[in-house]
Amino acid sequence: MGSEGRAAPAPWRSGTSPEKDRMERIETHLSYGGRQEVWKHLSTTLGCEMRLGVYLPPQAPQRPRECPVLYWLSGLTCTEQNFITKADAQRTAARLGCIIVAPDTSPRGATVPNDEAYDLGQGASFYLNATEPPWATHFQMYDYIVKELPMLVEAQFESASTRLRSIFGHSMGGHGALMIALKNPDRYASVSAFSPILAPSRVPWGIKAFTAYLGEDRSTWAQWDSSELLAQATAKLPLRIDQGLNDEFLASQLQTENFSAVCERANYPLNLNLHPGYDHSYYFIASFMEEHIEFHHRAWLR
Amino acid sequence: MGSEGRAAPAPWRSGTSPEKDRMERIETHLSYGGRQEVWKHLSTTLGCEMRLGVYLPPQAPQRPRECPVLYWLSGLTCTEQNFITKADAQRTAARLGCIIVAPDTSPRGATVPNDEAYDLGQGASFYLNATEPPWATHFQMYDYIVKELPMLVEAQFESASTRLRSIFGHSMGGHGALMIALKNPDRYASVSAFSPILAPSRVPWGIKAFTAYLGEDRSTWAQWDSSELLAQATAKLPLRIDQGLNDEFLASQLQTENFSAVCERANYPLNLNLHPGYDHSYYFIASFMEEHIEFHHRAWLR
Repeated sequence: MGSEGRAAPAPWRSGTSPEKDRMERIETHLSYGGRQEVWKHLSTTLGCEMRLGVYLPPQAPQRPRECPVLYWLSGLTCTEQNFITKADAQRTAARLGCIIVAPDTSPRGATVPNDEAYDLGQGASFYLNATEPPWATHFQMYDYIVKELPMLVEAQFESASTRLRSIFGHSMGGHGALMIALKNPDRYASVSAFSPILAPSRVPWGIKAFTAYLGEDRSTWAQWDSSELLAQATAKLPLRIDQGLNDEFLASQLQTENFSAVCERANYPLNLNLHPGYDHSYYFIASFMEEHIEFHHRAWLR
Repeated sequence: MGSEGRAAPAPWRSGTSPEKDRMERIETHLSYGGRQEVWKHLSTTLGCEMRLGVYLPPQAPQRPRECPVLYWLSGLTCTEQNFITKADAQRTAARLGCIIVAPDTSPRGATVPNDEAYDLGQGASFYLNATEPPWATHFQMYDYIVKELPMLVEAQFESASTRLRSIFGHSMGGHGALMIALKNPDRYASVSAFSPILAPSRVPWGIKAFTAYLGEDRSTWAQWDSSELLAQATAKLPLRIDQGLNDEFLASQLQTENFSAVCERANYPLNLNLHPGYDHSYYFIASFMEEHIEFHHRAWLR
């Protein structure tokens, strides 16, 4: 796992140092009896400063290494702030005693490449390891999410379980969560997504991003495409998807129906929930957040 | 009620016309089975276009004139968006079947006076009727919230009760909610506030705003100050206040302790909840939103 499309090591990847791995807390708020915090650190994988939201439930101080960690990946244009201010995940995380980690959606900063479009560059990493210039140097989000981020979280927060991790996300982050879980069924107990991009190789958002980050040779794309990965999956994780049927991107970008057929052919159990009237917004996400966290909670109790 | 400090009528107040009273829906999202909408209209009271959030619970279509309406007033710098995206009020409003109306915090626009500071002018109306130039022409938020807004809401939304209204808010909006309810105990069934400014005549935010909007003569300030109004209240409404004890503005701007003493002297029942560790943010508001809506719901059942 995880070495796919890896660029030549950049200078800052020459090793870890205590200085570079140090996390600094920049926000802390009491929330439903727990703490919603924002931390920053210099990422050795990405070569830039990164921010992340961390919710620590009220139970955390009493449960060393016993709080499952649920990773949230946000969609296009988001930072670490959208989820922590809009999804009301803290309420259910407080009740069920889990940590939620919500990283930024890409490397950031003046020295990091960008594009004027909202769907490429900063805020639009697609959670893969880029191989093409100018992106390959910094856009190694897959390695960041799968390796560096859990390492940092589990080192910094004593309550964090090193055994129970799950992952979920929205839209581009739904693609990221599914792709990452399907590539690492040993590292995650369960996966879920709101309005995910399910076949990035075949929709405009994904084709644009994959062409830029991975190049024109589409044979390298399949390893980052959930539909392709699922068709070949051997280990099966609890997998839930919620999709609003009034989502403005459903037909053009998300292709939920095709994915459902892929799961059926692969005999991969899919907990698919279609919701008439709901759109692509955080109003949809908040409405079903409790059910998603409960879904992961059930997987942790197995 | 409501004629205090009234400026000379501006031209657009010469009467209502169907054109001016027309509301236009600019956002609608399914949320917890109901609808979170944003509307705009040309306010005859304020002489500018105004936006407001309206949450219609799932029960609304089946309950003509039976859904209580809860008005939310936001704090300094907020628009109609902060509450509707961050407070998670929709969840409890959906369960209890109430409408929530969240207006903007002041008149807005290029023709409306403003100040460079965050705590004066646009986004900082303090919900009163200004008497001083340049503010008096547009800054008539008290009349807007008490008269024009309910009239528009009850005309536009058939489910809106014309009998059961309550009001709540945060910080400057907590001041607004308390002040408005204390001046109109016949129009509101209950009132509550998060982190309210309780004695605006005696704290820096309030002294600055009242001086600008009402002038140097402090004898005119008392009618807009909840501590003064409460001391003279005859009718008593259910009144709840929640205050975080780690609130950075508690000592300098909010003065919760003094207000508690005022209530005691006036024999006015106060449901006061002090929360160790909580700050002034929406993380605090969301944590106790369910309890506030339930508080109002109990008042409506009387």
